[in-house]
Amino acid sequence: MVSRGVEERVSELQDLRDEVAENTLDIVKLVAVRMDLARKIGQVKTRESLPIDNERVEDALLEDVLAECGRLGLDKQVGAKILSTLLAESKKVQRAQGASQPKQLITPMVMMAKAKEVEKGGRKLVRLDVGEPDFRPPKAVLDAVSKALYEYKTYYTVGRGIPELLGALKSYLAKRYGYKDAQENQLIVTPGGRFAVYSALATVASEGDSVVVIEPNWPAYKEGLDYIGAKTITVKTSFEEGWEPSPERVKEAVRPNTKAIVLSYPSNPTGKIMSKAAFKEIVGYADDRGLAVISDEIYNDYAYKPCPTILDDLPKRYILTSSFSKGWSMTGFRVGWSFAPPETSARMLKVLGLMITCVPEFIQLGAAAALGCEAEVARNSMAMKERIDSTYEELRKVEALEVHKPEGAIYAFPQAKDPGFDSSAFAMELLEKKGVTISPGTGFGDYPRCFRISLGQPQAVLTEGVRKIGELLG
Amino acid sequence: MVSRGVEERVSELQDLRDEVAENTLDIVKLVAVRMDLARKIGQVKTRESLPIDNERVEDALLEDVLAECGRLGLDKQVGAKILSTLLAESKKVQRAQGASQPKQLITPMVMMAKAKEVEKGGRKLVRLDVGEPDFRPPKAVLDAVSKALYEYKTYYTVGRGIPELLGALKSYLAKRYGYKDAQENQLIVTPGGRFAVYSALATVASEGDSVVVIEPNWPAYKEGLDYIGAKTITVKTSFEEGWEPSPERVKEAVRPNTKAIVLSYPSNPTGKIMSKAAFKEIVGYADDRGLAVISDEIYNDYAYKPCPTILDDLPKRYILTSSFSKGWSMTGFRVGWSFAPPETSARMLKVLGLMITCVPEFIQLGAAAALGCEAEVARNSMAMKERIDSTYEELRKVEALEVHKPEGAIYAFPQAKDPGFDSSAFAMELLEKKGVTISPGTGFGDYPRCFRISLGQPQAVLTEGVRKIGELLG
Repeated sequence: MVSRGVEERVSELQDLRDEVAENTLDIVKLVAVRMDLARKIGQVKTRESLPIDNERVEDALLEDVLAECGRLGLDKQVGAKILSTLLAESKKVQRAQGASQPKQLITPMVMMAKAKEVEKGGRKLVRLDVGEPDFRPPKAVLDAVSKALYEYKTYYTVGRGIPELLGALKSYLAKRYGYKDAQENQLIVTPGGRFAVYSALATVASEGDSVVVIEPNWPAYKEGLDYIGAKTITVKTSFEEGWEPSPERVKEAVRPNTKAIVLSYPSNPTGKIMSKAAFKEIVGYADDRGLAVISDEIYNDYAYKPCPTILDDLPKRYILTSSFSKGWSMTGFRVGWSFAPPETSARMLKVLGLMITCVPEFIQLGAAAALGCEAEVARNSMAMKERIDSTYEELRKVEALEVHKPEGAIYAFPQAKDPGFDSSAFAMELLEKKGVTISPGTGFGDYPRCFRISLGQPQAVLTEGVRKIGELLG
Repeated sequence: MVSRGVEERVSELQDLRDEVAENTLDIVKLVAVRMDLARKIGQVKTRESLPIDNERVEDALLEDVLAECGRLGLDKQVGAKILSTLLAESKKVQRAQGASQPKQLITPMVMMAKAKEVEKGGRKLVRLDVGEPDFRPPKAVLDAVSKALYEYKTYYTVGRGIPELLGALKSYLAKRYGYKDAQENQLIVTPGGRFAVYSALATVASEGDSVVVIEPNWPAYKEGLDYIGAKTITVKTSFEEGWEPSPERVKEAVRPNTKAIVLSYPSNPTGKIMSKAAFKEIVGYADDRGLAVISDEIYNDYAYKPCPTILDDLPKRYILTSSFSKGWSMTGFRVGWSFAPPETSARMLKVLGLMITCVPEFIQLGAAAALGCEAEVARNSMAMKERIDSTYEELRKVEALEVHKPEGAIYAFPQAKDPGFDSSAFAMELLEKKGVTISPGTGFGDYPRCFRISLGQPQAVLTEGVRKIGELLG
């Protein structure tokens, strides 16, 4: 009897598994039909010179899929992920039919590699491309790192960060932002702000999800989301509107699969600072919708009007990312940090642990020392203000350009008056003919008429660079 | 006439898009049916106390899916990815029905966090868990890093690595391995061997793929593959067979979606060194099948019999990963490197660029200095040999254990004679009662009877630790 019972149960499982196999092959057959359709669509688009991407069509499909998931009691995340797989493969198939491909963008990192290549050949360049201050890191930081080295703080340490630095960050949050409730399990020390941003994105979004980013912006957000397989929903701001982001447009951009909104002020590349009221409105909206807000506050020491921070009014879901790179001019130390609810931090820490183990202890001790260097940060900030003022005046003299005065960060982002201006071609010509490097606006979004000038150079260099830009523009 | 042509074309595209929408919703419906089946399977498994994972069933399904893809002309990668999504979601649904869940493993990193927690409370521990040598890093490295700091090598640098270090690595490959053909575009400097391994895995495998790993092994391979959504196919070796991996079993493990084989000798945790003949056979097989070989050679300075290297006979697809952590005892510097064909390196570099930007220049200069420190590496290697010899003798005195003499690396991996031994429970008891930390065997695969002792401690500490282990084992 027992033996018969087992057989029956085994056969019950086997029947279910047979159904699974049949169902799976049926799905595969439909996917093959889908790719045949993609092939035909690719042929039409190639013939008609239509672009592959069509946001409206994709959005409509997503709405349909999620509605169907709702009706069927299927996890919406799964529906969105399957759709994402189908769309990605469909685009690959369409491209194979010859439909137009997006071209390689000249991001600041691509520009840096090109410049280093030219410099290797011995040519001296005026480098206005690199997004880093030229200030020296605080002496106390160098001393702390060197001391730690000779004290053999050169072994593995815990992934989250050493107690000295976590403690110093807690005090910093209290002093700098008036935020006194930070706990150590909300903080993570990362190898640079970039990793804080990547792990933040990877924690809030998965393949098939989307995240809203206001453009123009640092390309690392889209790069991270592309890597994850999540979609970047772009809210564009324009030179004509003074790079002012509209909360209304941010709200309208949110899709049913949206998991987070990225805010980053002062802005790289525009130097814009969002008003506290607009920031609050967006954060409040995100909170109501259960969305996370990722606030990248890396340039907050270079703010020349009141700058919002997520710490002013924390929503339920938030990740603050920052770094020692800019305020302390410690780009090459690769040390940043994040602040988030404990469970979010735990998930970010898992990503860090599996890829990185930990940030070097001697560097963490340098970062802890940096938090005591308020005078140096203030000096850097004042020097940058002077450069913004002077460079703005220089740029205004260039007839072919228009420019808004940066309110913060360490960049200027002028726009050419010529509506047909191609800043990528201009950047290459400028490098070749004048030995000056800039970052084309297309590296930060759809801004071919704009380019970014980094103010991380002495004023004389900036003035010379702008003068040469003016010369080439004629 | 023109206007009518446009309308026709638009309607052609619209018709295709309508078909796409219908097809997509049909797929979603089938996925919902699939999850209903998963729910039923979950109920049966819960009732019968059957495990969720069933490799045989999954393998058969994969074969079916790939065969169907072949028949339909559908990219097999897409089929494998969709299957992976379905399986992952199905398991989630089954777990929700109460089917048994795998428990949290005590990996070396988890153990380290526990130990640091206890140490914070003031208790002094005998730390045999951490996989790092206790040797001091070479003085020349400390000096080079400190000098570079005060020379302000503290700014961004190119992602791949600074020319000084790339050049030094090329010379090192020539001198150490007799490999003279390395090009700079084959090398990448990474923040630790762990990141080299992660980016290697992420470059050869995607969601739905699989990678063969020989166990017991460092958990980072499986952690990376889990993160990517690729499957780890495990080839088990056993204490009884002297941890000897069989090339036959490696070959049998390869599935139609397998993209790579990971080899890592000397082995963490067993200290086994694969014979050159077996290594060559596996690499040759991988080459014939178009698979990549990832060879993690981080312990190659601690090898006490001839140790194979991928450089002896490069297949078409290979990634060598290594680090300064072990040979030079530079774990806390977080600097490693990889060597691969240029196009593979370019893809790995993209991952590094989007997450990390670059490794600190001052650390890279320290790594370049390390490559000149041959005497220190030789001294470390000799000291480790003595510890292996002595600790092996100590372990043999423990009646309850059996142990093979490590052929390399910096660990011993004894097995309890008791077939019911639970090394996780033992590790916790040992920490509590004796203040000694070890890494349970389940952190490295399905080895509950084994545990890892790190030899990165002075002999007196090792002897004391083993004695306390013996005491607790009774």
